[in-house]
Amino acid sequence: MCAPGVVRSAHENAARPSRRGLLGALGAAAVATTVASAAPRARAAAPQRVIDLTHTIAPGMPVWPGNPPPTLLPVALHAAGGFAQHALAMWEHTGTHLDAPVHRVPGGLSTEAIAAPDLLAPLVVIDISAKAVVDPDATLTRADIDDWQTRYGAIPPRAFVAMYSGWERRFADAAAFVNLDGDDVPHAPGIDPEAARYLVSDCDVVGVGVDTLSLDAATSPDYDAHTAILGAGRYGVEMLADLGAAPASGATVVVGAPKHAGGTGGPCRVLALV
Amino acid sequence: MCAPGVVRSAHENAARPSRRGLLGALGAAAVATTVASAAPRARAAAPQRVIDLTHTIAPGMPVWPGNPPPTLLPVALHAAGGFAQHALAMWEHTGTHLDAPVHRVPGGLSTEAIAAPDLLAPLVVIDISAKAVVDPDATLTRADIDDWQTRYGAIPPRAFVAMYSGWERRFADAAAFVNLDGDDVPHAPGIDPEAARYLVSDCDVVGVGVDTLSLDAATSPDYDAHTAILGAGRYGVEMLADLGAAPASGATVVVGAPKHAGGTGGPCRVLALV
Repeated sequence: MCAPGVVRSAHENAARPSRRGLLGALGAAAVATTVASAAPRARAAAPQRVIDLTHTIAPGMPVWPGNPPPTLLPVALHAAGGFAQHALAMWEHTGTHLDAPVHRVPGGLSTEAIAAPDLLAPLVVIDISAKAVVDPDATLTRADIDDWQTRYGAIPPRAFVAMYSGWERRFADAAAFVNLDGDDVPHAPGIDPEAARYLVSDCDVVGVGVDTLSLDAATSPDYDAHTAILGAGRYGVEMLADLGAAPASGATVVVGAPKHAGGTGGPCRVLALV
Repeated sequence: MCAPGVVRSAHENAARPSRRGLLGALGAAAVATTVASAAPRARAAAPQRVIDLTHTIAPGMPVWPGNPPPTLLPVALHAAGGFAQHALAMWEHTGTHLDAPVHRVPGGLSTEAIAAPDLLAPLVVIDISAKAVVDPDATLTRADIDDWQTRYGAIPPRAFVAMYSGWERRFADAAAFVNLDGDDVPHAPGIDPEAARYLVSDCDVVGVGVDTLSLDAATSPDYDAHTAILGAGRYGVEMLADLGAAPASGATVVVGAPKHAGGTGGPCRVLALV
């Protein structure tokens, strides 16, 4: 059994974006395991694309001003026992990470209390990179959402809406990513609070993501986008990677949120299935 | 836009397992965002089920003998700045967690190098709970795999194969989960090395999971299942939760693996989509 020669899945077809591909692959994979036959199944997995929306966590990566870099400390070695292991130490809001409601709101949901079905959602990507390239304080506004909906249709309920500002292109240069001015004030795009309130109240999103370090524009005086989103019991994901490779609509996102008791957030693996 | 009154997705239908449901829901969600119309779409999301295969990480949870419990230390408070945050400190192999190949094999793949498409796979659950309930040293053998294949068909290529021993029922009692004998030797089920080699070589699995603390039975003298799986560049996931609720075949698993540079593993969020 486990017949060789079966068509491989995403691995060999990673370059071909196809919504039909995702559905076909999931369908074929699911069907394949239920067919009570040992015959080779050439239909095993149709083309499909997985986009990794997660930055690699490493010591030199951009962090919010004042936050420490992540650290790894060896605590087991191959030469002594046959296994290697590190102790991990980092603040929760490091790398591509979740903002749980309790990050902003006392008594709000912590990481382990977010409902698992909310971690799988239609992915909506709203591109504001054209204005962000000339204005680092640009925000995703209600007008940007309306433009997206005119083009692609209404945002479906329980979607995950992500702002793509192009900030990922600065990732390798932490200083450019954090973008402090002469007074040590960071400048980077974020969600306009009115737009955040609309996404929660009218669109019923499960969560909102950004490719910068903060749901709010970095110069926000009051962090009202955080308040609107997390205050409504929805989650945020900050510092998403590679959103430029994701389609504006039609993908499904899986947010691999951390699950430690009482957590205000934490590093998470985020995958877009196209 | 964002019309209300649209049929909700998994949240309100979490009790109904349906393979057709998953495909329908993903399909409908994807289609919904591409229809250029603001009309309400009653077909938005068909029933679907997300099973969370992840234990909550907390200080009193079971850990491998000699490993420390995970810790959270507050580093920001709502009362001083408006946001709460913790510093996380834990060993990589804590909770429901990934074993990257380098955990066992010098020079093997570390967490960030595992290909993202390998984190989405058909889920195969092989139930050995009947023998594990009477023998804590029980292993998943080649015969168990053959029995599964006789019932459900050949394991599809690039699948994720999980051993269900029923150990999750001991989770609330860390001492029963670790199960030390009078000589402080732990006893818990794992994968027989010959079965591990078969899964890698003949079935071409992407990874192997267990609901115990180790891919090998806890009394293994040489950890040959680890060597077979990680040595072949495949990953492991240990301490999976709620496998008893997952179907033997037909689900898709998403492994939200950590992505820190050089990591030997780390806590991960694992979801089964049924």
